[in-house]
Amino acid sequence: MSEFLSRIRKKSLHKKVMEAEDTVRFFKNGMDLGWSGFTPVGYPKVVPLALADYVEKNNLQGQMRFNLFIGASIGQEVEDRWASLQMTDKRWPYQTGKVIQKQVNDGTVRMGDKHLSLYAQDLGYGYYTKGRGGGFDIGLVEASGITEDGSIILAGSIGAATEVIQFSDKLIIEINTAIPSFEGLHDVVMLEKPPHRKPYLISRVDDRIGTLHVPCDHDKIVAIVESRKPDKGRPLGPPDETSERIASNILDFFGDEVKAGRLPANLLPLQSGVGNIANAVVGGLVNGPFANLKVWTEVIQDTMLDFFDSGKLEVASATSLSLSEPGFERLYNNWDKYVDKVILRPMQVSNNPEPIRRLGVIAMNTPVEFDIYGHANSTLVGGSRMINGIGGSGDFLRNAALSIMHTPSTRPSKTDPTGITCVVPFATHVDHTEHDLDILVTEQGLADLRGLCPRERAREIIDKCAHPDYKPILTEYYERAEKDCFARGIGHEPHMLFKAFKMQESLATDGTMKIKNWD
Amino acid sequence: MSEFLSRIRKKSLHKKVMEAEDTVRFFKNGMDLGWSGFTPVGYPKVVPLALADYVEKNNLQGQMRFNLFIGASIGQEVEDRWASLQMTDKRWPYQTGKVIQKQVNDGTVRMGDKHLSLYAQDLGYGYYTKGRGGGFDIGLVEASGITEDGSIILAGSIGAATEVIQFSDKLIIEINTAIPSFEGLHDVVMLEKPPHRKPYLISRVDDRIGTLHVPCDHDKIVAIVESRKPDKGRPLGPPDETSERIASNILDFFGDEVKAGRLPANLLPLQSGVGNIANAVVGGLVNGPFANLKVWTEVIQDTMLDFFDSGKLEVASATSLSLSEPGFERLYNNWDKYVDKVILRPMQVSNNPEPIRRLGVIAMNTPVEFDIYGHANSTLVGGSRMINGIGGSGDFLRNAALSIMHTPSTRPSKTDPTGITCVVPFATHVDHTEHDLDILVTEQGLADLRGLCPRERAREIIDKCAHPDYKPILTEYYERAEKDCFARGIGHEPHMLFKAFKMQESLATDGTMKIKNWD
Repeated sequence: MSEFLSRIRKKSLHKKVMEAEDTVRFFKNGMDLGWSGFTPVGYPKVVPLALADYVEKNNLQGQMRFNLFIGASIGQEVEDRWASLQMTDKRWPYQTGKVIQKQVNDGTVRMGDKHLSLYAQDLGYGYYTKGRGGGFDIGLVEASGITEDGSIILAGSIGAATEVIQFSDKLIIEINTAIPSFEGLHDVVMLEKPPHRKPYLISRVDDRIGTLHVPCDHDKIVAIVESRKPDKGRPLGPPDETSERIASNILDFFGDEVKAGRLPANLLPLQSGVGNIANAVVGGLVNGPFANLKVWTEVIQDTMLDFFDSGKLEVASATSLSLSEPGFERLYNNWDKYVDKVILRPMQVSNNPEPIRRLGVIAMNTPVEFDIYGHANSTLVGGSRMINGIGGSGDFLRNAALSIMHTPSTRPSKTDPTGITCVVPFATHVDHTEHDLDILVTEQGLADLRGLCPRERAREIIDKCAHPDYKPILTEYYERAEKDCFARGIGHEPHMLFKAFKMQESLATDGTMKIKNWD
Repeated sequence: MSEFLSRIRKKSLHKKVMEAEDTVRFFKNGMDLGWSGFTPVGYPKVVPLALADYVEKNNLQGQMRFNLFIGASIGQEVEDRWASLQMTDKRWPYQTGKVIQKQVNDGTVRMGDKHLSLYAQDLGYGYYTKGRGGGFDIGLVEASGITEDGSIILAGSIGAATEVIQFSDKLIIEINTAIPSFEGLHDVVMLEKPPHRKPYLISRVDDRIGTLHVPCDHDKIVAIVESRKPDKGRPLGPPDETSERIASNILDFFGDEVKAGRLPANLLPLQSGVGNIANAVVGGLVNGPFANLKVWTEVIQDTMLDFFDSGKLEVASATSLSLSEPGFERLYNNWDKYVDKVILRPMQVSNNPEPIRRLGVIAMNTPVEFDIYGHANSTLVGGSRMINGIGGSGDFLRNAALSIMHTPSTRPSKTDPTGITCVVPFATHVDHTEHDLDILVTEQGLADLRGLCPRERAREIIDKCAHPDYKPILTEYYERAEKDCFARGIGHEPHMLFKAFKMQESLATDGTMKIKNWD
């Protein structure tokens, strides 16, 4: 028996095996599709690409459009291929890819983003596909196997795969034989609808509350297809100097909090977002003074393997193994070493306020910009251009014991290496409010906002986080706003509302946010 | 034995009894004080007023200033008296009162607001009084009695009284003999700090998980004072026509959701905010088709008593009995009828994402304004003038199964009866993001935002919610923004950022938001 067939342990399902091309007949223009996949791991590959080939060969661009509901991002070789062929109509709740991003912003693709924990739940509640009474026409799931009773053994991510399996009319399963079986890594909990929901009895990061496999009505499975395409993975460059300085500010802060008795010596479970700064923070922890650490997060990146190897990280819970190709090799080659220390959960559990608040997670994420009162923009450049989506940042930041956002204080514009300040008077878009965030950090310093009123926060943020080139500009904004608003008795959070975006206007016209004055 | 002494069942504490005036010596300028009290019920009265008398008589205005950490609002006779005597420095996290509001907005009082569930938790984590290592110098708590073992029997609210008792160095207890003992109404859970927090095992609204009394280290009690001042309460006028129409839109929507199978026939546990619209919604339910209903909310208002009397409401859980004086009379006169159906919980439980999400609460709250993409402002008029504070609106809206905000479509300006539109292009302040809200309602109609991308939301909100006078203005804004942003490939959420507040500018200069065009 082939490796592929041996992965389908329920033999009666062998008759559902077919080639990817043969699944094309299941798809019809306008369908609602649920896919597995998260940051881009565990997404279906051969079936979407076969469908894309079919559309291309038959010149069906624009005549085969679908609504895609996935956990988060998928590989660009699928995402952008579909977008290029005009196959993507709605797209929830997160995307990465040049073509898809362009289409989200030129009106071709109807994208929506929602806190990931709510998204997974609301999928199950039928909110996104109300037209058809909830659920999906077809669910497309990458798996690493099927058990004797027809349950699904997922692959390198869970995301919303559980809800996709639960709420799809038909299921197409891709068994990926280019990766080993991930059996043993998952802790599966299916969504119950209220009033029948039960507590998630997680009091420690490594508490298991579910099953290893996803229960599945196997009558819904219309096709099982072999995939030999490994996840593309997400490589990360080495941290730059700015990231290292931000990480250093955060690690110093952790030390101070432990000294003050507000954090235990082994800190609290850590969540860190994706990208260079998160990477640098984990790098700092690998070499830092803290031990017996735990991670409760959304994605596990390559540096987590170093973190495990350092002996300082005890356990990590996430919804996706967002590793690079060499990172996956390292995982596979040391499977026994890592497997007992890693738990993958559905995103409606990994990102759920319930365990995040109970465990007292320390959340760390990168915004596009934040303002002097502590509102942060994670999604829309200039208030209108979508980058990727809100992801889980709000799930974690709103519910953490310590909510931290970190960013370089400036970014380059086309003509000025510090032409864009990430500390602004008024955020052009708000994803995280002043009521959500405790700590803001740049390479310049760390602002501790806890217990401060808005006016104190403004002084602290400008003083600690702003780049020296922008401190005078931001200070002038604040002081003029304060004077004017106090005089009118409207100064709880002073603003010059009608001039609030003057720096952004200057960027648009002069290529830099360095304005001369606020007149 | 007097009624007062008989309420102090631990006899060894009788020696702590003193007159309110005698507690003045415990207070020193600059102290951090924790108080019981919530919307304005269960707050200390005689001790704060005795201290105010002392300050006034001795001309100590501005020389006796305190940082006040309370659950939410307290009676204006205390709040405004303290503010008038310049006794309030910091004030968290919510206030009502003309004098305090003025001082919050002219720079005299340093107020901060935070989601109430986070606030109570962060109080316990020591975030607001970092300077002294967390906790309070003195905790001031209104109680209805003390048990044989020195535990506290709270009064008509819990709020953050549990954290105040837990984390204060000294405690002063006011036993209110003008009200009956509230023993039996409370379900007390004390705050544990991570990593030692445990699940709140609430799967039904009436699940009890705690104790009737607040455990208390009675060595911390330095004074016990009798109070004979009943809560002032909060009277509510009859609903107006606009509120009735909003309520009717919401009830129709509930009916449709039940028909579609997305809500059970007895709906899901209801949370409703304070004020006229909330009142009208409850009024609608009293006369409506739904039965066997449950309420999981923050405050219980007078109309809830009608709701119980209708036989349609089974049980209500909250953190405060925010009744009017006649409402309290009605409660006291029918104690046995209501007592088994009402549970009071600490605000870090009533407002906690954990039970709210699990129970699938339907959340309904009133904003100052919302914008065409579904961001809502609950706190700051014109982006800078504080009204009361965010309260629990974010706790409920972010975690509900259905998140609903309701407001009249317009409010009067000084010169124009519809001079202010509550549906704006760009919210002047964001407390609730586009990722948080499902449904927006005005007397004009109901916008169902679930599953819509931002551009679809804009069309839906303008169409369903905006006042006819403002529909053309908002439509022109949206269409010009869309055209411009699509052309530049930045149109996921189209805005004319540099003109976004033109309607507010018009209000400031011309007394109405009805602008002629967007040039």
